[in-house]
Amino acid sequence: MAFITKRINILKLFENNQIKQLVCSSYMLSPSSDRSYNNNNSNNNNDKSSKYFKYIGIGAGITALIYYNYCQSRKYAALQSASQNLKKHLHEDQVGMYREDLPDYSIEDVMKHSEMNTRVWVTYKCGVYDITDFIKEHPGGDQIMMAAGSSLDPFWLLYGIHKTPQIHGILEKMRIGNVSEEVSKDALAHMTDPYALDPKRHKVLRVHTEKPFNGEPPAGLLTEQFYTPNDIFYVRNHLAVPDIDLETYELEIEIENTDKIKKLSFADILKLPKYTVSATLMCAGNRRSEMNKVKEVKGLNWGISSIGNATWTGARLVDVLKVMGVDDNTKEYSHVHFEGMDMDTTSNLYTASIPLSKAVNKDGDVLLAYEMNGQPIPRDHGFPIRVIVPGTVGARNVKWLGRILIAKDECQSHWQQKDYKGVPPSADPSHINLSKLASIQELPVISAICKPSNEEVVKVENGFITVKGYAWSGGGRKIIRVDLTTDGGKEWHVANFAHQTDHASPRHWSWTLWTARVPVAKGQKTVEIWVKAIDSSYNSQPDTIDNIWNYRGFLNNAYHRIQVNLKF
Amino acid sequence: MAFITKRINILKLFENNQIKQLVCSSYMLSPSSDRSYNNNNSNNNNDKSSKYFKYIGIGAGITALIYYNYCQSRKYAALQSASQNLKKHLHEDQVGMYREDLPDYSIEDVMKHSEMNTRVWVTYKCGVYDITDFIKEHPGGDQIMMAAGSSLDPFWLLYGIHKTPQIHGILEKMRIGNVSEEVSKDALAHMTDPYALDPKRHKVLRVHTEKPFNGEPPAGLLTEQFYTPNDIFYVRNHLAVPDIDLETYELEIEIENTDKIKKLSFADILKLPKYTVSATLMCAGNRRSEMNKVKEVKGLNWGISSIGNATWTGARLVDVLKVMGVDDNTKEYSHVHFEGMDMDTTSNLYTASIPLSKAVNKDGDVLLAYEMNGQPIPRDHGFPIRVIVPGTVGARNVKWLGRILIAKDECQSHWQQKDYKGVPPSADPSHINLSKLASIQELPVISAICKPSNEEVVKVENGFITVKGYAWSGGGRKIIRVDLTTDGGKEWHVANFAHQTDHASPRHWSWTLWTARVPVAKGQKTVEIWVKAIDSSYNSQPDTIDNIWNYRGFLNNAYHRIQVNLKF
Repeated sequence: MAFITKRINILKLFENNQIKQLVCSSYMLSPSSDRSYNNNNSNNNNDKSSKYFKYIGIGAGITALIYYNYCQSRKYAALQSASQNLKKHLHEDQVGMYREDLPDYSIEDVMKHSEMNTRVWVTYKCGVYDITDFIKEHPGGDQIMMAAGSSLDPFWLLYGIHKTPQIHGILEKMRIGNVSEEVSKDALAHMTDPYALDPKRHKVLRVHTEKPFNGEPPAGLLTEQFYTPNDIFYVRNHLAVPDIDLETYELEIEIENTDKIKKLSFADILKLPKYTVSATLMCAGNRRSEMNKVKEVKGLNWGISSIGNATWTGARLVDVLKVMGVDDNTKEYSHVHFEGMDMDTTSNLYTASIPLSKAVNKDGDVLLAYEMNGQPIPRDHGFPIRVIVPGTVGARNVKWLGRILIAKDECQSHWQQKDYKGVPPSADPSHINLSKLASIQELPVISAICKPSNEEVVKVENGFITVKGYAWSGGGRKIIRVDLTTDGGKEWHVANFAHQTDHASPRHWSWTLWTARVPVAKGQKTVEIWVKAIDSSYNSQPDTIDNIWNYRGFLNNAYHRIQVNLKF
Repeated sequence: MAFITKRINILKLFENNQIKQLVCSSYMLSPSSDRSYNNNNSNNNNDKSSKYFKYIGIGAGITALIYYNYCQSRKYAALQSASQNLKKHLHEDQVGMYREDLPDYSIEDVMKHSEMNTRVWVTYKCGVYDITDFIKEHPGGDQIMMAAGSSLDPFWLLYGIHKTPQIHGILEKMRIGNVSEEVSKDALAHMTDPYALDPKRHKVLRVHTEKPFNGEPPAGLLTEQFYTPNDIFYVRNHLAVPDIDLETYELEIEIENTDKIKKLSFADILKLPKYTVSATLMCAGNRRSEMNKVKEVKGLNWGISSIGNATWTGARLVDVLKVMGVDDNTKEYSHVHFEGMDMDTTSNLYTASIPLSKAVNKDGDVLLAYEMNGQPIPRDHGFPIRVIVPGTVGARNVKWLGRILIAKDECQSHWQQKDYKGVPPSADPSHINLSKLASIQELPVISAICKPSNEEVVKVENGFITVKGYAWSGGGRKIIRVDLTTDGGKEWHVANFAHQTDHASPRHWSWTLWTARVPVAKGQKTVEIWVKAIDSSYNSQPDTIDNIWNYRGFLNNAYHRIQVNLKF
């Protein structure tokens, strides 16, 4: 979710039975619309209170920085109507709600307080807190400074331990104000900059480029929760984030060379049967930085964190296509193009395509998603509609979806024809005909060690160290094993799975989080750890980057190798 | 196809409009039954003349060695009715037909003539030929000796150059007799041996075990034709080949814990809509011998040829299941068991299972196949019905299919629970619980160099040598690239595809044959060549066997590496 500049106490609005006119585009809770709901995800508790809502588009304009954490509010609404037993917790759970007795602070105000010498402020929901004096008492130590001058929200999602009335109470005692409604002064000052209306991002994201924004979270955070909080989910933008008005938003669906055109408003999409899918997204450039060390490559220097896992909720593409007369018996067309609403300087819209066979397969689980982890899809991730193509490279999961075209051929966009291609290791960049190469769609099996990090000092306990990471494979193939070695492959140790959904291949879209205790020889000062994963088709990873190196730095799924320093 | 002990001139039978009573179980051509035919395979010319047939079960008993090459006969029938232009070739195309003016010889008689000092005999269709005096004139050199004392048929399928009236005429001039109808004396002499009724195999197969029979062809033959002739297709039998009477054959289909049982006769199966699928089958132990060299493993010492490609024709399992009320909406069951009619000494039948999702997917192309490369499935390959599960390990493509069970769980047979599992590299055989590991189903991407062979002397031409081989991936994933290196990975060369079907992933079931010209440094005496393939999900092969080694020797899909001696 984008950095929140103003969070509205929707609960309060409901109490007053009155909806304020707000300078924003958003959609909110309402108990008036009963809609079907098919929750495929046993771990997505947020959704349990989200059976009812409708959208209300109000206002437009320079409003993109204003965003509502409506899901949290829904939770309060649900709590309010819950049993008497829960009522005693209401006070604590109202932490972060708007308080009229306190002053408002802008995001810029909060950002100025990121160090001890300026005092340290953080936000949580609508609240601003001065935590300076608490920092030294924080049981989690320095970790809390990752939120300094920024938002606590993603960390409290990662570390569930904070979700107690006691800790809520401790935080609320440090309350100094509310996050203000004020539109960013930066945004107003730079209206000629196409990126001026980009959302603010959480400062914990490591930025590769600002414009367009590309950033990834610290790897160590990835293994903390099975579902990556929206605020720290890697962001891979090709262009500026479009500013979309829900009221005028329209999704066009067309069949090539026919007059079959269908237009769906956001409300129309909400009316379609609703599905939730648990799926991992990954950039084809994930782990490019390791390839860059072997020999220089072209592209953003991603670490191991341009990957994340979330629940995605929305309508099924297969249902929309059926209405258009397109299903798994359709023979005349072979591809589906997705056009985003993000535009480059020559007015080209970001566009990509997938094979029709994936789109019309009801077990392909392609969604027109409007929720990510139970919240409206954040602007950085495609608000209001992102197509989710589980098991397929991030680049085909087109954000800010504006148009769908059912076509004979692959789309001819730069991103489909000249980018996101697996290039042979010895290809000459100046002579290669990229259009002739196969587009990256399903991704190969991959894994990485998130904890410890490379060069970290690790405490040895009884001759063992603990290692954590993720493993994933494209095409819905489940991870069946993760192997680690600390002696260059003489002995391989099988990791334990810390979290894996029970979906069967080929419909297993989410990553597997694993943990392993691996032995280290006594007296060793450093150790190199390698990891490889095996998926349900028994595909495994290449041993070395050397033999899969390519000048675009795509598809680095070689063993992940780190070296750590040991402390006995 | 099993070694042919007697081939009947069916054409002649048709001419006489009279069907002889024969001591055999088989089915033959007839123009009386018009059946739908969906030919998915553009390269299977044999099928073009096979739109009409019905089966006739005649007799039973000790008849398994007698088999009819009816497809060849069908071709003649088609030719007879063809245009006048073709008539002049009829004489030559009748090579190998039964000749009443010549004596009959048994298979044993022919086998005694496999060396120059005994004179060299070969068979072709129904004909026996003494080729001794022709051998030195044979333009293909010594190759012809691969058929000495055996059958020419598979080689003429491999080397299409022989299919001219001229060459047919040359062969027919060497004609000395017919293959006799006589039942094998060996078979009669050893009726207590469960393997006594096993078919005779072509001598070109390299035998790993005789009882049960396991053998593979010379690798160099694999790349000669896209479709591997039945006679030289690798054979992987777990038990003795059952002797099945078509007239009493019955396929049972059951749903677990219900009284839903369906019984299909062979005639019933023939009446179902007919499909042809082009698919590669591979044993999970293919390339085990290389793993064995790293460190001893358990299992048949397969080279690189326990793989073959064929067209398979039959009824779709999905159609049969639909009649049983089982389809892709079925939620109560997750697996389909296949029971063969081959029995071990304790009366256990060979049984294996696949996920229901594969079986009910109409694009999964699971067949109840009764033809292999346009001929009745040979006994060694599952006569009369073999289930073909494209993209899935050979072991689940159950031969001699007798029973199908739709069930909640995987089948509990030895072959599903204790065999055909991917074992971790450092697993302790005495302690591992194999039942807890994932069954091998879809196979990972693999490739191999078939020509030249390891240690072969190769002529260098203008600094290059020519290399040929196969590449394949399970799960219907198309091969998108094959890379070779002759300098240990410094430079990689992309192979050309010699033959690939145009089916799209994930329905690309056949292998890709490739060829490459790779450079070698001047003055080099030997060169090591490595190959790796990349499939449509951009999975590639592991670099080394060392890191995927497992005590069962399964799933060796590391780079194939050979060393050849260079001749400049």
